[in-house]
Amino acid sequence: MPSEPAETERRTVVVLGIDPGTAVTGYGVILRTPTGGVTLRECGVIETSAGRPLLERIRDIYDATAALIERHAPVAVSVEDVFQGKNAQTALKLGHARGAILLAVAHARVAVAEYAPREIKKAVVGNGNATKDQVAFMVQQQLRLKSAPAPADAADGVAAALCHCMVGRFPA
Amino acid sequence: MPSEPAETERRTVVVLGIDPGTAVTGYGVILRTPTGGVTLRECGVIETSAGRPLLERIRDIYDATAALIERHAPVAVSVEDVFQGKNAQTALKLGHARGAILLAVAHARVAVAEYAPREIKKAVVGNGNATKDQVAFMVQQQLRLKSAPAPADAADGVAAALCHCMVGRFPA
Repeated sequence: MPSEPAETERRTVVVLGIDPGTAVTGYGVILRTPTGGVTLRECGVIETSAGRPLLERIRDIYDATAALIERHAPVAVSVEDVFQGKNAQTALKLGHARGAILLAVAHARVAVAEYAPREIKKAVVGNGNATKDQVAFMVQQQLRLKSAPAPADAADGVAAALCHCMVGRFPA
Repeated sequence: MPSEPAETERRTVVVLGIDPGTAVTGYGVILRTPTGGVTLRECGVIETSAGRPLLERIRDIYDATAALIERHAPVAVSVEDVFQGKNAQTALKLGHARGAILLAVAHARVAVAEYAPREIKKAVVGNGNATKDQVAFMVQQQLRLKSAPAPADAADGVAAALCHCMVGRFPA
């Protein structure tokens, strides 16, 4: 008797993609059909003011992430996972923001997927060294948009979501 | 008519001090009387296993911080605030842990005070360049302990709490 394929998701599901930043966090919300068809539902940015204490900024990022999860009920949240800069102070601040996002996901009991920037580029463009413009173009093509998602940080969030839709696992 | 001094706290209050780390977070809980007398109530460490995903580790740090706040009802939480290393990846991870701690404090609606390592040394020893041993010795003296708080990470948490007891503001 031939072996059965593993059970996979048969509903259309929502994937939330996030590109974390202390000042600007980009996000994209994608609908994925069981056959892998993808449609953009929403994208945007969570902005925090540099003039406010870090504590308030990360609380705002946590709250905004929690609100996105509550509004869209994603089956998974895809978060970009590597800091490419070399400045320790910048990395420390980014870590605060990323920690707030991961906690909001954990507290909502939603699955998290983490992808390095080059994994996202590889999945979306087919080339781990693709430029930002190439990523934006392929995101636009795959999602059949009239123009690339804007602003650029939102496009990065959409790319993270799209990456998970393409290479992530969707168990039933 | 001479001006009245500003109203200050007339109760004995609790201050929780935290030295954040991804692997080991040290903490100390100090009772402070209205006249500035200090007594150590508890100190210890929150440890997370390097083998577990970062998401679970920061959730554990958040939960442990929230539990400490609930158990001791501090009037303020004093958190060490500067990363002294130069490695961006280490700083990024530390930022996740520190973000989780700050969020737990914010969600509990407790005041947060942040001190750089040299502010803590300056307050506790009188010298911003004091060694770890000097800090441990002065913490032991001020709190009339038989030996320095152990392990070392716990001592750093106690020093953060002691610093706030000495130089922080305690409005009524």
